[in-house]
Amino acid sequence: MSSEPVPAARPVGIGFIGLGVMGRPMAGHLLAAGHELHVHARRPAATDGLVGAGAVAHPTPAALAARCGVVLLAVPDLPDVEAVLAGESGLLAGLDHPLTLVVCSTVSPDGVRALGARLAEETSGLAHVVDAPVSGGEAGAVAGTLAIMVGGEDEDVALVTPVLRACGRPVHLGPLGAGEVAKACNQMIVAATVLALGEASVVAERAGLDLGALLDLLGTGLAGSQVLEQKKRAFVEHDHRPTGKARFMVKDLGFATEEARRSGTATPQLDVLRTAFTELTDAGMGDQDVAVVQAWIESGVSR
Amino acid sequence: MSSEPVPAARPVGIGFIGLGVMGRPMAGHLLAAGHELHVHARRPAATDGLVGAGAVAHPTPAALAARCGVVLLAVPDLPDVEAVLAGESGLLAGLDHPLTLVVCSTVSPDGVRALGARLAEETSGLAHVVDAPVSGGEAGAVAGTLAIMVGGEDEDVALVTPVLRACGRPVHLGPLGAGEVAKACNQMIVAATVLALGEASVVAERAGLDLGALLDLLGTGLAGSQVLEQKKRAFVEHDHRPTGKARFMVKDLGFATEEARRSGTATPQLDVLRTAFTELTDAGMGDQDVAVVQAWIESGVSR
Repeated sequence: MSSEPVPAARPVGIGFIGLGVMGRPMAGHLLAAGHELHVHARRPAATDGLVGAGAVAHPTPAALAARCGVVLLAVPDLPDVEAVLAGESGLLAGLDHPLTLVVCSTVSPDGVRALGARLAEETSGLAHVVDAPVSGGEAGAVAGTLAIMVGGEDEDVALVTPVLRACGRPVHLGPLGAGEVAKACNQMIVAATVLALGEASVVAERAGLDLGALLDLLGTGLAGSQVLEQKKRAFVEHDHRPTGKARFMVKDLGFATEEARRSGTATPQLDVLRTAFTELTDAGMGDQDVAVVQAWIESGVSR
Repeated sequence: MSSEPVPAARPVGIGFIGLGVMGRPMAGHLLAAGHELHVHARRPAATDGLVGAGAVAHPTPAALAARCGVVLLAVPDLPDVEAVLAGESGLLAGLDHPLTLVVCSTVSPDGVRALGARLAEETSGLAHVVDAPVSGGEAGAVAGTLAIMVGGEDEDVALVTPVLRACGRPVHLGPLGAGEVAKACNQMIVAATVLALGEASVVAERAGLDLGALLDLLGTGLAGSQVLEQKKRAFVEHDHRPTGKARFMVKDLGFATEEARRSGTATPQLDVLRTAFTELTDAGMGDQDVAVVQAWIESGVSR
């Protein structure tokens, strides 16, 4: 007889914590797909709609974990993940069965790698971590068409992929952290494109060009992009009401920079992008759309 | 009686000088569209094919100008334009009729503005200049589907637009120089996108991601672009054989920088791009494709 406790079987329930703008519609899709959904929120009212549709609400993360084999976390950042995990009522309290945590937030790639390593050790291998940040915004979350960038070990990813399919299109890109690296890469490219459009639009208007005609023309050639299509009106009309707030780029580009440094990669353009979005946020423009780089270039704050 | 000479009528002929990779197919389209085409080349053999198809070859630019009301110039840069214009056998020698020059090359916006002002004065208003740089590459020139970015006065542009339609899609964007500014803006955006993809691809591969899967995924979202579509294979396979040589960006981004400075616009990202393409050209990578920014980031030359 061994004194080692035998792990209990993995429960069939799927947990969801972080019922915000993105999390709530995602949780709704899990329920609609037929999963046994368990939810927890600090404000119990946040779970009302889901409970009405068949979800089970729990007073603590620990109570939720007792019923779940997979828990999705859509909280803002890693400290919020830690807060859910920690303490006597935390997700890991008294864990006696396998549990796979799916971090759906945009967080530090190295932070999520460290979390996975630490939890494996602290739970004697019971808790595994998969990172699965999303892109597609609130509209994609509501429609269930999010692009889901997944990092983790093959067996963990195989377990959570059918669950994530309820919310969109999961793609396994590499080891733990790979999803966050992919999201960082996405933001590097989006930010570079939007800043290039910002610089070009100011130079063009100051030279007397018809900016609408220019952007229509550029959109048909090698300079064409989704950013150009989606932000064209914002640039032509100088209307920077947010669809994606510029200040969120500061965090995302910070993660990208951290990852570039970790791998010893010099990224001169990323450095400029991070500086640009930091400066424009400091200048009070961070609550406007990312296309506000146009106004920032016009203001000459960078000079 | 006035001593002022009365200008002769504008000849119906269309001239073409600069029968290179881009110019020769463009001239062929003018001929095919039914224009009376006049050509000149320093190497007479360069005109053989066009003459066989009905063009009239001339030994000097001056002889060509005597028969033409519009002359397209597809020579490499403004000094080459000046060489065509200057001297006893130059395009302006003995000019006695209205002549509209169409600069189809990618040149300095301010340089082409200065050229227009100088020629108006030197020819007492007989010679006008329109700038009409193109994008679409050799394939677009051969297919007659070039995007043609046109700058100039309304009456000049109205005169040359039907001619340019034989070669693609001309769009009038603003006053003289506007076409060159548009081309500079195009290159700013293309360069920024390709460098962002270069940085992101190196960071992603060093983090263990499947680069092909990542770029496929990113291409479906806000990071999607024509550059990504057209250069994806180059990035995934690290194959930087040229479709557009990286060193040409140095010149184009130089024009963009000159124009930004003229209008007092700080362009921090453009500064990085110009440095990047200059450094990689200095490092011997300039004859490879613009996607060679990937190898340049990998080499850490920027550190």
